Amino acid sequence: PPFTDFDMAYFNSYAHVGIHEEMIKDRVRTETYRAAIMRHQNFIAGKVVMDVGCGTGILSIFCAQAGAKRVYAVDASEIAVQANEVVRANNLSDVVIVLHGRVEDVQIEEGVDVIISEWMGYMLLYESMLGSVITARDRWLKPGGLILPSNATLYMAPVTHNDRYRESIDFWRNVYGIDMSAMLPLAKQCAFEEPSVETIAGENVLTWPHVVKHVDCYSVTIQELQSVTTRYRFKSMMRAPLHGFAFWFDVEFNGPAISQTNRQPSALMADNQAEDGSQRKKRTNPNEALVLSTAPEDPQTHWQQTLIYFYDPIDLEQDQVIEGSATLSQSRENARFMNIRLEYASGQRSFVKECVMR
Amino acid sequence: PPFTDFDMAYFNSYAHVGIHEEMIKDRVRTETYRAAIMRHQNFIAGKVVMDVGCGTGILSIFCAQAGAKRVYAVDASEIAVQANEVVRANNLSDVVIVLHGRVEDVQIEEGVDVIISEWMGYMLLYESMLGSVITARDRWLKPGGLILPSNATLYMAPVTHNDRYRESIDFWRNVYGIDMSAMLPLAKQCAFEEPSVETIAGENVLTWPHVVKHVDCYSVTIQELQSVTTRYRFKSMMRAPLHGFAFWFDVEFNGPAISQTNRQPSALMADNQAEDGSQRKKRTNPNEALVLSTAPEDPQTHWQQTLIYFYDPIDLEQDQVIEGSATLSQSRENARFMNIRLEYASGQRSFVKECVMR
Repeated sequence: PPFTDFDMAYFNSYAHVGIHEEMIKDRVRTETYRAAIMRHQNFIAGKVVMDVGCGTGILSIFCAQAGAKRVYAVDASEIAVQANEVVRANNLSDVVIVLHGRVEDVQIEEGVDVIISEWMGYMLLYESMLGSVITARDRWLKPGGLILPSNATLYMAPVTHNDRYRESIDFWRNVYGIDMSAMLPLAKQCAFEEPSVETIAGENVLTWPHVVKHVDCYSVTIQELQSVTTRYRFKSMMRAPLHGFAFWFDVEFNGPAISQTNRQPSALMADNQAEDGSQRKKRTNPNEALVLSTAPEDPQTHWQQTLIYFYDPIDLEQDQVIEGSATLSQSRENARFMNIRLEYASGQRSFVKECVMR
Repeated sequence: PPFTDFDMAYFNSYAHVGIHEEMIKDRVRTETYRAAIMRHQNFIAGKVVMDVGCGTGILSIFCAQAGAKRVYAVDASEIAVQANEVVRANNLSDVVIVLHGRVEDVQIEEGVDVIISEWMGYMLLYESMLGSVITARDRWLKPGGLILPSNATLYMAPVTHNDRYRESIDFWRNVYGIDMSAMLPLAKQCAFEEPSVETIAGENVLTWPHVVKHVDCYSVTIQELQSVTTRYRFKSMMRAPLHGFAFWFDVEFNGPAISQTNRQPSALMADNQAEDGSQRKKRTNPNEALVLSTAPEDPQTHWQQTLIYFYDPIDLEQDQVIEGSATLSQSRENARFMNIRLEYASGQRSFVKECVMR
């Protein structure tokens, strides 16, 4: 695909150190990735790895520590220059090869056994970076290769959030004794026009989540990510005002696709070469799925949850049904943006809310 | 002055409700303004007021509550439309006249007795909104009129802030066991290139502050704000690493300029017409200056403090002298931006740091 001004802006946003600091300091994220690498150490040792969107190179270095023969660390952002410095300073230049460019543009002369990438955006699909993982997979991944994470699931659920509504909206009803309700329409628009990345608690969620999209990283196509539509039907487990929907995701780090699980001898031989033995202790059950979750009931991550608020809440009775559809699609204007269209109906009333995540 | 694209961007930034919510919810700010209006109620009652940059109109309404005959509420941002709605909903349309436009462009047919404005930006002078207050003063303020706030003072002081340095810089020395010190130059640049608005504690301040600029709102000129230079000399009260300088300000709400203090009969007559009597109780000593302070040792405001960090700390001994100069000037490119040039010397070493607040 062509390199657009939007790509340029996107890659530039990753040139700033702060964003990498935030991601690395997200211990849930970084430690789960490290645990995943260590869990698949048998497979990774002696193999060729590609890290798609390597940032500062931390995952590539984890892979080198796990015994990878070679790691191609690819990033189109200027941060790749720093990644290269970090690799050099750690005497890993003979293992980790930093490539400063888009996955779509770089050249490598061999197939890879492992693709690792931390590609997930808000609402999973925002940023559209998964497309680059798919490109790398289709171009370089050998049969039987490993992709980490192996699969991802996006969820949605109806939420109640009185505190948020009170703080941003009801606030205007009495401002130091003055009735500023005239601000309400604009306040609702400003607060709720765009998706809001924030942390909610399990108690805000009105019922079990609905799966919006399941992604199998071994088989997903760029085509099927351009627009995702789901129909949902929720039955509220309690009586509460419905303020909108929350979206979150999890990803799993399973082994290679079922049809391709034959481990190769070199991997088996490398089984005990872990540099970081400490991770091994956590492997109480090596077959249990390793999950990185951004759900409200799980420890907080930098992804938090993404909320789409209605302009006005809907009062729900217990067991009342809310149904409709949600469509997430890449913006035509800028594929890094996401258009969201929510249809929802409850009782006799039906609504549509459209917004853009920029 | 001409209406530039930069003005447009500046006014647009105030069209969003969030910024007004933040300012109004800053109780130190809003309650001090209200207290100031109530303290000068004798003067305001029956008079003509202009509110420069009225936002949602809250200060104008406070002035109406204090008995103003007429309040011209001026704002160039689209928020003026909302201010007008709020005024109407409070049945104050016959007192508060909302003018949607720049102070430099609006027309009013009478002089004003009082100018009130919440014009202070970060580091006091950022945003350059004081120029509009000066324009209003020179165009409309009657002799003996009142300006609230009446004067403002910008301070600076050397600070130590190990936590901040450790968190953003030293962090890279050991990232999950990996030495990422190669990130340090970029991390320092990203963290400390620009002024940082953040809250520090009194303990971070190494000695008494230096007055960078005192502004008398009755006499200050636009000319003298274009560039402010000060020479400072600090003697550290403790042994500590010097990480940079903090800037903060306070403003006072004193009566009309000394030469013009003759209260007029109409004001005296209105002495007991306070709608909000509760404020009166705070007037234990009506001659004591009412101060809105953003100093580190005072309750936090949305202005916080503005920090200018060095790329590398300087180890100070107790009583060691740091001296140099600071220049704050309007950017030529965009008068809403501020160029900051710091010269500092300690022992045999001297340094220059230049940055821009955008």
